[in-house]
Amino acid sequence: MIKNVAITGGTHGNELTGVYLVKKWQKNPKLVERSSFKTVTKLMNKRAIKEVRRYIDQDLNRSFSLSDLSNNKLENYEAKLAKEINGILGKKGSSNPNMDFIVDLHTTTANMGLSIVVSNKSATTWRSIAYLCKMEPELKVYRWRGDIENAFVDSIAPNGFAIEVGAVPQGVLRADLFLKTETLVYHLLDFIEKENKNEDMDLPKEIEIYEHKSLLDYPRDESGDIVAMVHQDRQDRDYTLIEENDPLFLTLDGETIKYTESLFIPYL
Amino acid sequence: MIKNVAITGGTHGNELTGVYLVKKWQKNPKLVERSSFKTVTKLMNKRAIKEVRRYIDQDLNRSFSLSDLSNNKLENYEAKLAKEINGILGKKGSSNPNMDFIVDLHTTTANMGLSIVVSNKSATTWRSIAYLCKMEPELKVYRWRGDIENAFVDSIAPNGFAIEVGAVPQGVLRADLFLKTETLVYHLLDFIEKENKNEDMDLPKEIEIYEHKSLLDYPRDESGDIVAMVHQDRQDRDYTLIEENDPLFLTLDGETIKYTESLFIPYL
Repeated sequence: MIKNVAITGGTHGNELTGVYLVKKWQKNPKLVERSSFKTVTKLMNKRAIKEVRRYIDQDLNRSFSLSDLSNNKLENYEAKLAKEINGILGKKGSSNPNMDFIVDLHTTTANMGLSIVVSNKSATTWRSIAYLCKMEPELKVYRWRGDIENAFVDSIAPNGFAIEVGAVPQGVLRADLFLKTETLVYHLLDFIEKENKNEDMDLPKEIEIYEHKSLLDYPRDESGDIVAMVHQDRQDRDYTLIEENDPLFLTLDGETIKYTESLFIPYL
Repeated sequence: MIKNVAITGGTHGNELTGVYLVKKWQKNPKLVERSSFKTVTKLMNKRAIKEVRRYIDQDLNRSFSLSDLSNNKLENYEAKLAKEINGILGKKGSSNPNMDFIVDLHTTTANMGLSIVVSNKSATTWRSIAYLCKMEPELKVYRWRGDIENAFVDSIAPNGFAIEVGAVPQGVLRADLFLKTETLVYHLLDFIEKENKNEDMDLPKEIEIYEHKSLLDYPRDESGDIVAMVHQDRQDRDYTLIEENDPLFLTLDGETIKYTESLFIPYL
């Protein structure tokens, strides 16, 4: 049984969709209430939200590794905040966690549409994703494997993922993506309700997912400043195949950097 | 004769197209050199650029009114910076200004495409705009009348305007818009060269412009926080007519606020 669910927004303070959805639900909690479980909503990084910045000292959504959570020497704002949040919504790795499911709301300037970023391997997590794919056929599922240990917010609960929608600038609300995110969260709450009540949901046996392959940084000069942009023929083409010799970057001097397999470093 | 031209970027520190174009030209000054005049390139708000913020204390691009420039009590970062810049690229209102023409490079999260924002009434300014419209038929010209006195960067020279391109998120470079901005600046330099040499440019007798009518803020609550977004049916439709009863905003609660003439306050 899923007894406690957390919906978190503003983990990155400049991603406003989650911030304003959580504000909306804190004013109207009935919208996220269901009969078989309790729902908590939480604004995560209040200082960063106030400053409309991603974070103050370090990325909060990379601050939830077990080693960092237990390291008393880490004392910057987000490191301390992560420990506080883990005490409320965690504890990570505990057999008696405060939350059974966490969905963390994000946006991106990339043209990712309506996406889920998931590391969790639990059956409940993946059943919920199968349900969401059935309800929203445009939904893309990106399985993240960019870290040795998942240090995302949702990693402190036994089940969960992040919702990632774009393209939307930081510090900006887009009504279309706000509504899509809101609807997806309601579908998730409906799923948990049905799961708790053992309703047959006729879930798809297979879903299409996008596997994390590698992270590739922008080309930079000696001082760390970027010297290229995403190539105009690649821009906005998220989730489409990049083939050998496709344009990938355009340098500020107008040179095209093409994709070759060797640019990428395998993920671990 | 136009003897001195300034191309300025990073007036808003999170609008990267101008920042990286100026960096490019400072590495390769020949790209903006022409035979009949001198070109200066300048990164304007270096602290804001470093912090990838619009500004530190106040909007630099609203800091160039004559009264503020001569007010010694204004001592915050941008107020002082504006005076320093006016000493280098101005002086505003002087009969012997350091620059004859200033083009200030901006970006916007709005879907304004390739635009010029102009307040200046000089014949040279408007001849240059006519030339640019001829060279780039997609160019939109927005005549700004939002202030009693123009306090933009370009107002400190006798001729000039801002280039405004979007949609692009703050803190992000888009290659397509970078290239369009760069090309437009080269056209402007070509115009000045031809103007100085009295070449016949066969300029259009008329151009289409968009007149500033009014500024309309987002609906807000008592604490000043926004309670609505641009309506999804209005989003991205810059430069298209809004008719009575068209959807304008969507509140966070899902209500549509429609356009009525009375929402707008005439510009002055």
